[in-house]
Amino acid sequence: MSLVVQKYGGTSMGSIERIRNVARRVARSYDAGNDMVVVVSAMSGETNKLVALANEISDFPDSREYDVLVASGEQVSMSLLAICLKSMGYKAKSYNGWQVPILTDSAFSKARIAQIPDTNMRADLKEGTIIVVAGFQGVDAAGNITTLGRGGSDTSAVALAAALKADVCEIYTDVDGVYTTDPNICDSARKVEKVSYDEMLELASLGAKVLQIRSVEFAKKYNVNIHVRSSFNDNPGTMVTKEDKEMESILVSGIAYDKNETKIAVMRVPDTPGIAAKILSPLADANISVDMIVQNVSEAGLTDFTFTVTKADFKKALAVTREIATEVAAEDLVTDENISKISIVGLGMRSHAGVATKMFQTLAKEGINIQMISTSEIKISVIVDAKYTELAVRVLHEAFGLAGGE
Amino acid sequence: MSLVVQKYGGTSMGSIERIRNVARRVARSYDAGNDMVVVVSAMSGETNKLVALANEISDFPDSREYDVLVASGEQVSMSLLAICLKSMGYKAKSYNGWQVPILTDSAFSKARIAQIPDTNMRADLKEGTIIVVAGFQGVDAAGNITTLGRGGSDTSAVALAAALKADVCEIYTDVDGVYTTDPNICDSARKVEKVSYDEMLELASLGAKVLQIRSVEFAKKYNVNIHVRSSFNDNPGTMVTKEDKEMESILVSGIAYDKNETKIAVMRVPDTPGIAAKILSPLADANISVDMIVQNVSEAGLTDFTFTVTKADFKKALAVTREIATEVAAEDLVTDENISKISIVGLGMRSHAGVATKMFQTLAKEGINIQMISTSEIKISVIVDAKYTELAVRVLHEAFGLAGGE
Repeated sequence: MSLVVQKYGGTSMGSIERIRNVARRVARSYDAGNDMVVVVSAMSGETNKLVALANEISDFPDSREYDVLVASGEQVSMSLLAICLKSMGYKAKSYNGWQVPILTDSAFSKARIAQIPDTNMRADLKEGTIIVVAGFQGVDAAGNITTLGRGGSDTSAVALAAALKADVCEIYTDVDGVYTTDPNICDSARKVEKVSYDEMLELASLGAKVLQIRSVEFAKKYNVNIHVRSSFNDNPGTMVTKEDKEMESILVSGIAYDKNETKIAVMRVPDTPGIAAKILSPLADANISVDMIVQNVSEAGLTDFTFTVTKADFKKALAVTREIATEVAAEDLVTDENISKISIVGLGMRSHAGVATKMFQTLAKEGINIQMISTSEIKISVIVDAKYTELAVRVLHEAFGLAGGE
Repeated sequence: MSLVVQKYGGTSMGSIERIRNVARRVARSYDAGNDMVVVVSAMSGETNKLVALANEISDFPDSREYDVLVASGEQVSMSLLAICLKSMGYKAKSYNGWQVPILTDSAFSKARIAQIPDTNMRADLKEGTIIVVAGFQGVDAAGNITTLGRGGSDTSAVALAAALKADVCEIYTDVDGVYTTDPNICDSARKVEKVSYDEMLELASLGAKVLQIRSVEFAKKYNVNIHVRSSFNDNPGTMVTKEDKEMESILVSGIAYDKNETKIAVMRVPDTPGIAAKILSPLADANISVDMIVQNVSEAGLTDFTFTVTKADFKKALAVTREIATEVAAEDLVTDENISKISIVGLGMRSHAGVATKMFQTLAKEGINIQMISTSEIKISVIVDAKYTELAVRVLHEAFGLAGGE
């Protein structure tokens, strides 16, 4: 007998009919002899409705009360699923975050899980009860409702799996699993059977948004096996798990892209020590997070300093940078809102030379100019003109043999 | 400085604009120097929406989960009001039932309040924080969410006022207060300034549905002064309070009517001991509550047994009664769905003779036939043909001098 944690997202819980489907899926796993803990998100659209109500009152709603408000969405969906399971004749019981309890710090809207005592759940599991837990929610030491931030239900599920030492944490979503790249722009995209935590972290943060990043960090820390799969069919999905030999033999496991970035270049500033900090700290003060950063020596003690920010932050970032540019006597400010970040990710890169070269050559052969480059141990990202996004993804997918051998 | 408990119903909380109005009203009382505890219902329509979701899954949703589901409505409205108060610069904090805590028994959907420890609230009040409490909700000893039944927010407010020894419990609703009768059918209906708990109990249960009956019972038990008033204007409303000399001098304080009843008569059954129980217990077993009961001796050891049930229970009650009628060898079964119950209520009846006579004469003068009569210490109810409802109310209102002396 296994202990299985399942998590169903907002789309899977999006209507009474879909909740019935979820109940049937949960029941099937229970009937197969598993102990079941089910984590649910709010019905799709509900959280947005609640946020809209809060924003109708205030642009900056009080953070404690905001969490109380949005947490109600999961309370609704979990009770509906429990009602459904009970009506099918199963023992079931819903738990809000405070009822588990999922203890967090007091950082409202982005709380971090501190501890999950399992006494209550163990008692119910022992009696054969299916436990339905509200994702996204927690409670702080003072008894205030907290939430874990958007997509926090993934983290709830993984944290519960860790606390209960579950055999697997199944994350049900509206896609079949993790793909080698976006199937919408590349016909030969293939579902990956297995991927390491680190690869998943790079793929998730790069735009392949299947799992919340923090849930993967959590899974890595506590060694939780995640199975990402679709709630609309029975296909096996993708296992996100710890590294093994097999994974390391694969050079590149996926190609990600992100069209949501913009570029700001501060041209020909005096190349003095501390210039990077001088340019970046006002951005940090303005709560703007900078993604890629490149600094090149140009000539005569002057340097070009280029970075990317999200489209949402672009205007604010530009205003801040304009002030700094004047201050540091930069000669020019160049911006580009039509860029795209293309990344290749794979454990194999660590032990194989020539991956970067192959990437650059492949792009060059298509006449795609590389504007910026950034690398980490298991990923290489380049910034290119946005119009080349789909082409770049397709040729790299082909070049690294991701389409598979059939 | 006073401690004021205010309660706002679903209509008063029905939109963001109305929640803003509530916030302004709360703030005004706070600015006047009062400690404030505010109890809110779910936004109007929300509870019905949640119930509809549950019923889409099951005709008999699990009672524990049903309470979890519907309790979310008050969680939304209380956080919105707290967000609004905070955005206006006030210290405010929302409390779910379990956060107060409002401790109840485990009778889901009709839980009874057992105890309300005031430590948490006292600490916040001391710091000048406006406390916003979810009405309707409680928590049982095992940490399960419970609800107090429809209209339970009134009871929450009165119970909180009792626990905190509040100076007054203001119940805001969409009417100005308690009237001598329904202003919609009687032009001369007049708002009552003061009414006793017992009179209010009779008026509420008779169809003048301003306050939940249980909240009045609670107020009577703990001697809580209730001020029923409108959230849409500043008119003084009606004080519901303990009896005083002044009240006793008034013969009749209000005329109530109820068109929601139906009559079933079991004709000519053998008048043997236990016949009433024989007829009534199958109805109780079917969870049908019977209101008025009249038994008359007819002739030759046979009796007619007549009772009333609500329109909603009529079909079920008729089916049950038909079986019993056969069993007890009744000669006939007569029903009437077009009846109305007219009641006069007043403390003064206790010490004044002739009130009943005056009532019956007044109706007779208009040619209104009385089908059934039932009396208590402070009320007399009669069943008449439904078509006479408005006429009966008007002539009784006039006869007992309720229109006032202006």
